[in-house]
Amino acid sequence: MRLPNHIGIIPDGNRRWAENNGLTKEKGYKLGINPGLLLFKLCQKLGIKEITYYGFTTDNTKRPAKQKEAFTQACIDAVKLLSNEDAELLVLGNTESPCFPQELLPFTERKVFGKGGIKVNFLVNYGWEWDLNLSRKTNNKRKNLDLALQSKDISRIDLIIRWGGRRRLSGFLPIQSVYSDFFVIDDFWPDFKPQHIYDALDWYATQDITLGG
Amino acid sequence: MRLPNHIGIIPDGNRRWAENNGLTKEKGYKLGINPGLLLFKLCQKLGIKEITYYGFTTDNTKRPAKQKEAFTQACIDAVKLLSNEDAELLVLGNTESPCFPQELLPFTERKVFGKGGIKVNFLVNYGWEWDLNLSRKTNNKRKNLDLALQSKDISRIDLIIRWGGRRRLSGFLPIQSVYSDFFVIDDFWPDFKPQHIYDALDWYATQDITLGG
Repeated sequence: MRLPNHIGIIPDGNRRWAENNGLTKEKGYKLGINPGLLLFKLCQKLGIKEITYYGFTTDNTKRPAKQKEAFTQACIDAVKLLSNEDAELLVLGNTESPCFPQELLPFTERKVFGKGGIKVNFLVNYGWEWDLNLSRKTNNKRKNLDLALQSKDISRIDLIIRWGGRRRLSGFLPIQSVYSDFFVIDDFWPDFKPQHIYDALDWYATQDITLGG
Repeated sequence: MRLPNHIGIIPDGNRRWAENNGLTKEKGYKLGINPGLLLFKLCQKLGIKEITYYGFTTDNTKRPAKQKEAFTQACIDAVKLLSNEDAELLVLGNTESPCFPQELLPFTERKVFGKGGIKVNFLVNYGWEWDLNLSRKTNNKRKNLDLALQSKDISRIDLIIRWGGRRRLSGFLPIQSVYSDFFVIDDFWPDFKPQHIYDALDWYATQDITLGG
């Protein structure tokens, strides 16, 4: 079966899951941590070369403080769990903002954990405008033309899987996503199960990849 | 019903339609012209403010010469038909390449036709790298930092509809698409029918637009 090299993960629906289960919205994020680790182990076993998790964005930080604290903590916990695995980890996001958690600063250059192998990128306080150097702050510092994306160490994405039913990219790595095949799962992220990945991979294998040619 | 301001149209499946109907691939493009006009009239009637058609891309120009000629001619014909309507037309693409048809040069600044009203953008020899000024040729000319996109006159897209079953953006306006809702129709573009638009709009009206907040 033709497998994607690089899978993008948009783990949406934590708040809706919480509400459906009688919890306040911010309680949903914690329930998204284990699914992330399960998914990692599955991809590792399948031989996927790279995964990128959409942690949180600069747009998300406009949410109520309780939610912001909860999703930030969930990202910190998720990255720490992943650092116990065999993986080459990179946390990417705007570290110049106070919304970027100090605990994750040591992860902002790619590092090999355990025996390495699979590349794992985790977007934390990521913004597409920041990535493309379109934000004012970044631009004022640029003296010369700078082609490099902030996300230059993240490769083209073959398959994006989004949980929670929304059919949009929500600013997820616009350059790496230009030709990505996009698979949407209606279940909320905390209800992750391996079958979701098998379904996405089965579908992906049937897609005709032409890159416009 | 909540309507999108701006709809992006990816009219895919012309070649597959031709093959399914016993024609050679390049014959499919011509069959895509009338659907484009029908769709325009429908959107105009519904009060949509802006539509963008994905004509062809710089990547598409790698296809066999016969196909390239056929899709270029179909774009020329489509734009000419639209210029008989009440619309504010803009053709956008890399005019510095020989793949950009001379006949469409007069349309590369937005012009009002008839009574104007709805904005219609038509991408012709468009490339996302060119749009973002990432291409080498454009960059060599830039002395200073230039934030402007080539597509700066095209607004954020609310809803993208793609015909032909593929679930990918294929480089369609990456910046305007960051938060677009993406609706895929399995029918091929030459089989366009108004119900496709009604289905897309019904679905769009049920989507929760948060822009990450």
